[in-house]
Amino acid sequence: MTKTTVSRRGLGALLGLGAAAAALPASAQEPAAGAAPVKAPKYPFATTEAFDASKVPAYKGRHDKVYAHIDAHQDEHLENLRRWVRQRSISAQNDGVLEMAKLVEGDLKALGFQETAIVPSKGHPGVWGWFDARAKKTLVVYMMYDVQPIEPTGWKVDAFAGELVDDPKFGQVLMARGATNQKGPERAFLNAVASILAVNRKLPVNLMVLAEGEEELGSPNYPEIIGKYEDRLKTADGVFFPMNSQSPGGKVTLPMGVKGIWYAELESVGGPQGGPKEAEVHGSQKSILDSPVWRLAHALASLTSVDGNTCLVPGFYDPIRPPSLEEQRLTNGLMPAWLAEEAQRKDALKVDRWMNGMTAGETLYEHLFNPSFNIDGLVSGYTGVGTKTILPHKALAKIDVRMVPNQTPEQIMQQFRDHLDAKGFTDITITQLSGYPAAQTSVDAPLVRAAIGAFNKHGVTPRIMPRLAGSAPYHVFTDRLKLPLVTGGMGHGSAQHAPNEYMVIKPKAGSAVAGLAEVEKFYVDLLFALAEA
Amino acid sequence: MTKTTVSRRGLGALLGLGAAAAALPASAQEPAAGAAPVKAPKYPFATTEAFDASKVPAYKGRHDKVYAHIDAHQDEHLENLRRWVRQRSISAQNDGVLEMAKLVEGDLKALGFQETAIVPSKGHPGVWGWFDARAKKTLVVYMMYDVQPIEPTGWKVDAFAGELVDDPKFGQVLMARGATNQKGPERAFLNAVASILAVNRKLPVNLMVLAEGEEELGSPNYPEIIGKYEDRLKTADGVFFPMNSQSPGGKVTLPMGVKGIWYAELESVGGPQGGPKEAEVHGSQKSILDSPVWRLAHALASLTSVDGNTCLVPGFYDPIRPPSLEEQRLTNGLMPAWLAEEAQRKDALKVDRWMNGMTAGETLYEHLFNPSFNIDGLVSGYTGVGTKTILPHKALAKIDVRMVPNQTPEQIMQQFRDHLDAKGFTDITITQLSGYPAAQTSVDAPLVRAAIGAFNKHGVTPRIMPRLAGSAPYHVFTDRLKLPLVTGGMGHGSAQHAPNEYMVIKPKAGSAVAGLAEVEKFYVDLLFALAEA
Repeated sequence: MTKTTVSRRGLGALLGLGAAAAALPASAQEPAAGAAPVKAPKYPFATTEAFDASKVPAYKGRHDKVYAHIDAHQDEHLENLRRWVRQRSISAQNDGVLEMAKLVEGDLKALGFQETAIVPSKGHPGVWGWFDARAKKTLVVYMMYDVQPIEPTGWKVDAFAGELVDDPKFGQVLMARGATNQKGPERAFLNAVASILAVNRKLPVNLMVLAEGEEELGSPNYPEIIGKYEDRLKTADGVFFPMNSQSPGGKVTLPMGVKGIWYAELESVGGPQGGPKEAEVHGSQKSILDSPVWRLAHALASLTSVDGNTCLVPGFYDPIRPPSLEEQRLTNGLMPAWLAEEAQRKDALKVDRWMNGMTAGETLYEHLFNPSFNIDGLVSGYTGVGTKTILPHKALAKIDVRMVPNQTPEQIMQQFRDHLDAKGFTDITITQLSGYPAAQTSVDAPLVRAAIGAFNKHGVTPRIMPRLAGSAPYHVFTDRLKLPLVTGGMGHGSAQHAPNEYMVIKPKAGSAVAGLAEVEKFYVDLLFALAEA
Repeated sequence: MTKTTVSRRGLGALLGLGAAAAALPASAQEPAAGAAPVKAPKYPFATTEAFDASKVPAYKGRHDKVYAHIDAHQDEHLENLRRWVRQRSISAQNDGVLEMAKLVEGDLKALGFQETAIVPSKGHPGVWGWFDARAKKTLVVYMMYDVQPIEPTGWKVDAFAGELVDDPKFGQVLMARGATNQKGPERAFLNAVASILAVNRKLPVNLMVLAEGEEELGSPNYPEIIGKYEDRLKTADGVFFPMNSQSPGGKVTLPMGVKGIWYAELESVGGPQGGPKEAEVHGSQKSILDSPVWRLAHALASLTSVDGNTCLVPGFYDPIRPPSLEEQRLTNGLMPAWLAEEAQRKDALKVDRWMNGMTAGETLYEHLFNPSFNIDGLVSGYTGVGTKTILPHKALAKIDVRMVPNQTPEQIMQQFRDHLDAKGFTDITITQLSGYPAAQTSVDAPLVRAAIGAFNKHGVTPRIMPRLAGSAPYHVFTDRLKLPLVTGGMGHGSAQHAPNEYMVIKPKAGSAVAGLAEVEKFYVDLLFALAEA
């Protein structure tokens, strides 16, 4: 092990960002002898300018009758959300998926969409809907109708019962798988459409809904589904993804992009390189046999620094470009709020420290501009209680890389393959389960301006985030269809991909988050603001 | 990485044993800079003398009436075996264990044991039985009445149904969990006792049965159970463990000892060192959070050479003594047969090669004289089908070390703790689930001579193995009670700790393995041979 001293280089006084690598323990900086130390880049910022969303004029239109209709039909609107979450749609387990697609299509029909269709694909189908409002502007509405699998323990309620729970902090919440990711806000958006139509008999913009049932699988077939409507989609003015964007404290973060994802399985099985090929054998045979489990452990260890925080795969960090000036301005604008809420984020994640001992400011840089490399799951041999002495014949790791712009799944796959081969792990298979690149929208797009204006009307100036650390298949919109994309809305929910997922329905007095009615009113304003932009 | 050239040093021309380390790939020989390469020792042999069991006179006594009784009661005897395997007794899952203990005790009572008892312990109880035959010699019979958990897939029959299956190779077999490990041969031994008593109304030796229900857990409480009868057990002439010792080809290997075992769980959980502490979080958080899974992967990788075959824990190999002259003679005697059956062993284990590319001769040395270090199980996060993107808050590995004489569980535990601490993995917990040292008996003990004589009578001169690569808590007999121990018998079974475990009952014509009747006759001869020794 070579100890390396890394000098601290500031990213800009305003940012409070030091070079995160300076905080890396020496163990994370183990270069091959003579090679340059591998680490994620930390590009210095060129500007201290900060984007200020409060300078975007609030949307001024008034839609009192629509608002009143929303208020008068809250029970019915809530039941629509409960109907959606009660329909199982676990894509990874093919549980209820087609039924959910049909439910979505049926709701679009009922709203008066002139065209609807279940869109077949190699995987779970998409759902298409076209509402011709004879308007000048057209909005594509992206939806995902699938959900994550259910955690075996930790749920306080049946995850598919659509239970209303009185939360001591937030008031009445809908607690269910999909409550906030993503059925709740999606059906709330359709409730808003329903109220506009009920009052006005027309919509301010045309709508193209294109939903998929494989978002939680990495959207492997959404490009195919897009393909069936590509020419028409390209004529739209932007893409909108309804979302509960408010934090527990009521703040909204509006992301201008997402990271890409490469999700793969690494598997080690006995074979010509050694180890039992067909079944586990008695554990004492380890004295004369190779172990596929040890092999996987060492293959994994070869992929990162000892602290698990720096990917050692050659070329992994090479394509990463410096943050653009727009991204820098957005980052500068976001930083004060980000810093102020560090303790809140730590509490939400239940962590004592940030990776590599980073400061809060450094974590923002990492979240936005560098890829992550994670182990999602690991399994081999006997995993039950007590002892069972076996030498397993196989071992599996599930891994994901979150890619920033210029990294591609094809490139990562090849880099990992080359790395494992170079380390002698030619027998370890890599099976890609999903993969798509990052996506980016400019804060200057009319749809983005309309969204910021609508938020400002509702008293919540959004923080603009250059991108999310998470992933969604938005590249098909931003890169393929060349459309700006907005993902967001009023409202609060949490515990996505975890037990007790919820969305706030009727916030208790004093709560800073919007309830279902205001969530819907925001969507009304957004549609009109876009029409008037 | 430093390439190290290791010179080949022969272990003796007769043995065909080269220094196995010479075959290690360079990757397995990664010393810390300046330190001596870590590897398992390969002590040269001082003698080429080979022990020859065929020189031990065959037992000459005749017990025709007892033999005839066995033949006449085969149906009843077989039903006894089926009754035992039908009673579940999975110690790791506390499934049926007490019921099995009562069944064993009831059978001893029924045979006429004057004393029987369920022996409470901190874990599953033992079973005691004393048969006072007013004989000069006393034999302790060790039994285990517990079995391994059931594999979720791969069983052709209900593992607890006691099914008789027509095996194309062996003829009629009993296929069930515990059929050969160890209920089958144990109950066969009691069948032999029953037939002697039915014919002779007395036994040639006194019997002390002391069974345990935690062998598959590493016998954590057997020392406590022994303690209750220690003074009486010490007066015995030896300990016998009934076993199906015949290979598929009919050969018998009689082990003079066993390796010890240290079985532990290594667990990594988020905490002050980083990572989520209470629950999994979204996988995209890896960009700013430490991962307990990566931490476990690297902690594991730190424990062995890259090939997983050399333990890098300092001091691990230090206590290992050179093979004794008796062990060398036994090894020399065993080697020709061991070499002749290499292909058969590879086929049974479904492996293409031996660890480190060893020759067959080298594998015998490793099996006998060096410890093994194995991963039995590994689990973290999402292990189901498809993708789920989470950063798990914990990860677990189940590991076992098979110890040779002079290594102790206490020492291994401390060495592993010190190693992980030195590598900075102070937060990784080590929980020992079982641990006991190796055990050894001299081939010159009268009980061993009696056993070899009985085998020679049955036409199968046993190969004497200095020790098994597997483990059993025999140290309590050999070290604590100072008694010689014999584990073996006629008969064949396999797939212990695996699906479709079986014991041959009625071998088809031409088969070289004994059926149940001859298994029982061997036990008869052994008891008389010991009485006359």
